[in-house]
Amino acid sequence: MAGNSFGQIFRITTFGESHGAGIGVVVDGCPAGLEIDMDFIQSELNRRRPGQSEITSPRNEADLVEILSGVFEGKSTGAPIALIIRNKDQRPEDYNQLKETWRPGHADFTYDQKYGFRDHRGGGRSSARETAARVMGGAIAKMFLAHYGIQISGYVSSVGDVHVAQSYTQLDLSTSEENIVRCPEKDTAEKMLALIEKTRDAGDTVGGVITCVATKVPSGLGEPVFNKLQADLAAAMMSINAAKGFEIGSGFEGTKLLGSTFNDAFTAEIDPKGHPRFKTITNHSGGVQGGISNGADIVFNVAFKAVSTLMKAQQSIDKEGNTVTLDGKGRHDPCVLPRAVPIVEAMCALVLADHFLRNKLSKME
Amino acid sequence: MAGNSFGQIFRITTFGESHGAGIGVVVDGCPAGLEIDMDFIQSELNRRRPGQSEITSPRNEADLVEILSGVFEGKSTGAPIALIIRNKDQRPEDYNQLKETWRPGHADFTYDQKYGFRDHRGGGRSSARETAARVMGGAIAKMFLAHYGIQISGYVSSVGDVHVAQSYTQLDLSTSEENIVRCPEKDTAEKMLALIEKTRDAGDTVGGVITCVATKVPSGLGEPVFNKLQADLAAAMMSINAAKGFEIGSGFEGTKLLGSTFNDAFTAEIDPKGHPRFKTITNHSGGVQGGISNGADIVFNVAFKAVSTLMKAQQSIDKEGNTVTLDGKGRHDPCVLPRAVPIVEAMCALVLADHFLRNKLSKME
Amino acid sequence: MAGNSFGQIFRITTFGESHGAGIGVVVDGCPAGLEIDMDFIQSELNRRRPGQSEITSPRNEADLVEILSGVFEGKSTGAPIALIIRNKDQRPEDYNQLKETWRPGHADFTYDQKYGFRDHRGGGRSSARETAARVMGGAIAKMFLAHYGIQISGYVSSVGDVHVAQSYTQLDLSTSEENIVRCPEKDTAEKMLALIEKTRDAGDTVGGVITCVATKVPSGLGEPVFNKLQADLAAAMMSINAAKGFEIGSGFEGTKLLGSTFNDAFTAEIDPKGHPRFKTITNHSGGVQGGISNGADIVFNVAFKAVSTLMKAQQSIDKEGNTVTLDGKGRHDPCVLPRAVPIVEAMCALVLADHFLRNKLSKME
Amino acid sequence: MAGNSFGQIFRITTFGESHGAGIGVVVDGCPAGLEIDMDFIQSELNRRRPGQSEITSPRNEADLVEILSGVFEGKSTGAPIALIIRNKDQRPEDYNQLKETWRPGHADFTYDQKYGFRDHRGGGRSSARETAARVMGGAIAKMFLAHYGIQISGYVSSVGDVHVAQSYTQLDLSTSEENIVRCPEKDTAEKMLALIEKTRDAGDTVGGVITCVATKVPSGLGEPVFNKLQADLAAAMMSINAAKGFEIGSGFEGTKLLGSTFNDAFTAEIDPKGHPRFKTITNHSGGVQGGISNGADIVFNVAFKAVSTLMKAQQSIDKEGNTVTLDGKGRHDPCVLPRAVPIVEAMCALVLADHFLRNKLSKME
Repeated sequence: MAGNSFGQIFRITTFGESHGAGIGVVVDGCPAGLEIDMDFIQSELNRRRPGQSEITSPRNEADLVEILSGVFEGKSTGAPIALIIRNKDQRPEDYNQLKETWRPGHADFTYDQKYGFRDHRGGGRSSARETAARVMGGAIAKMFLAHYGIQISGYVSSVGDVHVAQSYTQLDLSTSEENIVRCPEKDTAEKMLALIEKTRDAGDTVGGVITCVATKVPSGLGEPVFNKLQADLAAAMMSINAAKGFEIGSGFEGTKLLGSTFNDAFTAEIDPKGHPRFKTITNHSGGVQGGISNGADIVFNVAFKAVSTLMKAQQSIDKEGNTVTLDGKGRHDPCVLPRAVPIVEAMCALVLADHFLRNKLSKME
Repeated sequence: MAGNSFGQIFRITTFGESHGAGIGVVVDGCPAGLEIDMDFIQSELNRRRPGQSEITSPRNEADLVEILSGVFEGKSTGAPIALIIRNKDQRPEDYNQLKETWRPGHADFTYDQKYGFRDHRGGGRSSARETAARVMGGAIAKMFLAHYGIQISGYVSSVGDVHVAQSYTQLDLSTSEENIVRCPEKDTAEKMLALIEKTRDAGDTVGGVITCVATKVPSGLGEPVFNKLQADLAAAMMSINAAKGFEIGSGFEGTKLLGSTFNDAFTAEIDPKGHPRFKTITNHSGGVQGGISNGADIVFNVAFKAVSTLMKAQQSIDKEGNTVTLDGKGRHDPCVLPRAVPIVEAMCALVLADHFLRNKLSKME
Repeated sequence: MAGNSFGQIFRITTFGESHGAGIGVVVDGCPAGLEIDMDFIQSELNRRRPGQSEITSPRNEADLVEILSGVFEGKSTGAPIALIIRNKDQRPEDYNQLKETWRPGHADFTYDQKYGFRDHRGGGRSSARETAARVMGGAIAKMFLAHYGIQISGYVSSVGDVHVAQSYTQLDLSTSEENIVRCPEKDTAEKMLALIEKTRDAGDTVGGVITCVATKVPSGLGEPVFNKLQADLAAAMMSINAAKGFEIGSGFEGTKLLGSTFNDAFTAEIDPKGHPRFKTITNHSGGVQGGISNGADIVFNVAFKAVSTLMKAQQSIDKEGNTVTLDGKGRHDPCVLPRAVPIVEAMCALVLADHFLRNKLSKME
Repeated sequence: MAGNSFGQIFRITTFGESHGAGIGVVVDGCPAGLEIDMDFIQSELNRRRPGQSEITSPRNEADLVEILSGVFEGKSTGAPIALIIRNKDQRPEDYNQLKETWRPGHADFTYDQKYGFRDHRGGGRSSARETAARVMGGAIAKMFLAHYGIQISGYVSSVGDVHVAQSYTQLDLSTSEENIVRCPEKDTAEKMLALIEKTRDAGDTVGGVITCVATKVPSGLGEPVFNKLQADLAAAMMSINAAKGFEIGSGFEGTKLLGSTFNDAFTAEIDPKGHPRFKTITNHSGGVQGGISNGADIVFNVAFKAVSTLMKAQQSIDKEGNTVTLDGKGRHDPCVLPRAVPIVEAMCALVLADHFLRNKLSKME
């Protein structure tokens, strides 16, 4: 059973390769009547597209979205929504040396093992170019969520050993887009930029962490016991190219806390009508209890390793086992983090939209 | 769409509550002809069951497995395999105070929000007792994997701020079961035990990390692009009660590495017949490239928060918003880590069995 | 991917064999808060159980339902509902001759081909005893549908060449249970009974047709394009043992009609508030247009072949290809139709409950 | 949960509307290494396309297939295969009168009920134009099956009350394509043609039956208990526009047979190596026993109602409940049967390809 679909109710299927005709997504399960803003989809693609700044891949793709189905008079009809972008700036010849060779850290070896052969041009299906389809699908999910007031904000919280000092609650996340690193702590952003540039100039690459926050998420999202909200978020994030870790709330660091500290105590405000409104005083849990959203902000981190393609020579082996030297060809990012922010947001939006719909079926009405 | 099934081909569905009739699992998709060793299933349950040592919950459950279907003359028939254990040592009266109150850190509030009411006895469906069903299903998966030589070993690598010093490659993982903490580094195990006992005596709880290693996993497991092996492992682990983080290979720490360090270089051994056999020299990736196993060990960590139930008084609120004091009643573990080891292994086995079967369909034969 | 689950949202998984410990079902996706009447589940099982009359199998099974999970204080909690019945009156020795022999018309040969071996006792998993699990799951679905006023009535409309003369609209379907054939046309029921008895006395078996009607089904149920309501109903019905055909509305006979006759013309009544209420004047379509319910009665037929087990000697072959004579052993129905009525209804209820929930997600609210 | 995907392992997702940009399909789960013949896909589309003869819709669509992904150097790569055709000859203005009116027999009313509004141009998503996507996906499935020797042949076996006299075993199915009706019994084909022309000239439409035969299907396909081969075939066929009935083997007529006649007796031939090879003497079952293929031909019938759109005036009502007269506009087939043959074959191929792969996982190896 192949794995090119994601979500149960609000469900996307992606297709396309780095150096084929293009990249596309089919969104099935979007309710009818949602206003679809094509400009918003394009703006999300623009946040992900290569060539957007001096620290991203110079591959020149306009990534103009084309709609094939599912929208009539500006609204979703309930039919599947198909969106594609075309590949334009392809240089398959850059990859000729890879036909018989496997790049370290890439999917070359494992695709050959799994499928018997592979489309070696730019990584084929394993290329992160596939994530453009997720961004298109995620843009539809974001519009759906926005209808209910739910917002998602991702930002780069560390690059190498440079990391944001403050908690997200102390930052103005709306400023993340003001710099090309997508970090809302301005001086840290500058340090990150310097590190990325230094790394790039050395022909090397560097990893980091993205933090993502979803606000105004209603309580009740998440399906015990296997589709807990954090489980589906983890799957979503770990399916992104180069992701190596996921944590929610206080995550790995929080394992050192005692239960009496970790537990997020409840409090209640009495609203004007005399009804209690509940919330937790702290949010170590990251907005989920028992796998279900509790109304607090959903907060999680995603770890990304350094990009595998270097702009300097590396040793590898060919299919006969001979040692070969790989040149530093191709066009790649020295640090994937800035462009990964909209991808993390898109996957988060897809999970929340799916669970929002799933939750509508949880009790008798 | 409810979430009580896990896996696509090798698939389990679990049912049961903490204080209902019992806990069960239906395993569908296990190929016919697998020898089923009921004693092994029982021994796995014994590793998870409460009351096994002085640092686990004193709830006294024999957890004797009963088989209802799917096995004939000692072998799986291809029909669904149903396994149940009965609940015996129930004390629902311990939970009477919780009918109108929500415990901090528990699923009480969110279940009420999602479902409109809840079975409050021992957490009902949200109880970690449900994981006994996973252990039974995972035992079948382990037998399936063992047929192909695949082995899974989990161990406690940190409790609070006490952590194992050595890499798993330096440890003898077969010794993990020699102490009640399930830590293969003997002196560290003793420190962990001391910490757990101290914490327990204070009525408090503490978290930690489990490391899990799968060996002899063939290359080719994992389905691009959404069911990458690490994505399904992450979902599996994050669906376990109290899990807050997942990382594979060098994980969060590895984000600080440069690409030239991180990349796992290939090497080839020439076997006696003159064919090259490929492997990577390092294993920063944790055994996956492009979401597909590369033949190296699969290695990952799972972070667990401290158990929410304390054996001392806590403040909370009731449904009317009044402040209430919760007693430290019920029977719980001061540290969930030792008993979570077989659960982590079970979920890992379920993911690998599922992907082993899925991978059989990846190319023409 | 094994096939022991049915439904997408309201979903059942069944397990158990004819001569194992018992038969069970897990219902996942039933919304929380539904009142569960255990007596109703038992009464549905009683309609299906063997030994209920002189024209059914004499196997003596009380089929007493036992609940394992998912219900608290008489209501569904949102957790999976597991229900089992135990096998009591087993006679595996009746089947010893079948270990090395395949009965004509049975699943013996194909199970051996597919799985490599089989549980030969009473057909194992292929036994129609499995349908008891469907009836239990269907009973939950019926309770769910009844909450919204939807009712399902099946009846035997033909046995061999004896068939009901009137349309269902001319019959009082509530009288079906008044005779052991479950046919609401009294004199036809008597003829059917005579035919079944004559056939039974000759050691032979006979087939027939069940008609099923669902009333008060709201418009909007059915999911284009592959899960059209009639497609899911067809799959449901054709998954029942011995089913060989399905037709909705005017079905096969209606293919002879011209479009100008077939088309169900719309009409509108103006309700007291001045709003038009739409319906069709005829119902050739059987209540679906474009795969979606239109508010009219859902009407369909299911064809059942004669039971394969005869109470007289038959020739067959063994695994070596030798001709063998099978005795007329075992306990079976001369005509499956009367007992199949609650099974058809149960599968119909499961489809409608599933689509009722799916339809709640079709448009923005 | 929307319904635009079909199949579990070999799985298609379709998108597109009658008067949108085009129609497309994503095929996921096709094993890597299958040779993809684009000319064959086009030839299958040509068998379905409008305007192919004087008894089909005059809509002029070349339906030229364009491939977007999943094939490299002529072979499937294991990545999803996306195929599209563009809509060219659109006349949305033909449908202006339908904006506020519902055509009898069409999906207009039910789509409005389900989704709140609809794309009224040519039926939007409910148009049979969607089936072009199935034919493309089915062509891939046919190539997959052909690799294993499995062939599928459909033909028109009745139109109105004109029906084929002989059994399929007496006919040369390779001659079906020699006439525009796609009926292999030459004189019957002429009578069918005369009936269709007469009906067309009267502005009316007529239904009929398609028979489909799959040969060289290995034993073992079909998944107990809900995904029996006939259940999935039934769902596939009943999801085709205008389908009203499905029967396998002797179907409805066979319900009149006694078990002693119906049962397909086994026989064994001893092959040159002395091994028995089993088959049944008769094939009343249509090639399935217990829901699993037995190696005999798979044979089934699908009933299609007359096309709803007439080329003469019909009465209907508008959304306010007023009586309106619909003109006989639009471009439609007087009889859908000839063009439905490749669609039935495509859906059959999709079911068999899916089950062929599923069956590879049924036993230990």
